[in-house]
Amino acid sequence: MEINVLSDEHFMKMAYLEAELAFEKGEVPVGAVVVSRGKIIARGHNLTEQLNDVTAHAEMQAITSAANNLGGKYLNKCTLYVTLEPCGMCAGALYWSQIGKVVFGASDEKRGFRKINPSLMHPKTEVVSGTMADECSNIMQRFFQLRRNS
Amino acid sequence: MEINVLSDEHFMKMAYLEAELAFEKGEVPVGAVVVSRGKIIARGHNLTEQLNDVTAHAEMQAITSAANNLGGKYLNKCTLYVTLEPCGMCAGALYWSQIGKVVFGASDEKRGFRKINPSLMHPKTEVVSGTMADECSNIMQRFFQLRRNS
Repeated sequence: MEINVLSDEHFMKMAYLEAELAFEKGEVPVGAVVVSRGKIIARGHNLTEQLNDVTAHAEMQAITSAANNLGGKYLNKCTLYVTLEPCGMCAGALYWSQIGKVVFGASDEKRGFRKINPSLMHPKTEVVSGTMADECSNIMQRFFQLRRNS
Repeated sequence: MEINVLSDEHFMKMAYLEAELAFEKGEVPVGAVVVSRGKIIARGHNLTEQLNDVTAHAEMQAITSAANNLGGKYLNKCTLYVTLEPCGMCAGALYWSQIGKVVFGASDEKRGFRKINPSLMHPKTEVVSGTMADECSNIMQRFFQLRRNS
């Protein structure tokens, strides 16, 4: 299958829509989708407040949902699109999933996995950063500004 | 409340019983319990095969279950006992939970969080290693020996 050069941006937009859903719920606005063979097989957005669960990051839900969809727990032929650089927990989960590719938008200088140790991610996982970085960063900034002012 | 010097060993035995449950199910035998005010408020054992989900480590389930039990997502007054050194994913989750103390049994030289970066765990989390290390290590060895021979 030919990969369109716009693909990453297209799917990041879908992840961004998930981040917007989180924003509307008062959750830190991070969204993710998992793509297999050019199709979205899982979506997730941060639900740590609603579920009262620190593990309910967008990526964690998308990984679990993608495995359910595929009927197998390894995602080596899949790509995860996520609006924010994965944290240590999510990178560790992506490691176990052996995911083929991870594309993220905004960098997370504080708790992103690259600061902790880039080898948190599986050595076979291709990592692409900075797709729609400005939009993905802006929605975070807007969220925290609102929270400070409320 | 006085903390009995045998407490850590006592609760690690409870975590070990969880590891045995995992073993019986053909799961990598890791077990965990979360203790709050001297009482077990959550138990978990590895279910990655049964749930077809790489995120279903003992610790992840115990964290989610403890937060449900407490009605709050922070575990700063709790202790997690787990038979094996937490991996990057689980240490990352424990970071977000701000858990007060983590006691683990066997070390994991390959994928334990200390090799990746000890700061995966929250700076306020007290970490104790080596409680019932031999038993916790032996059950893992027995499991992988059986798997190799089957």
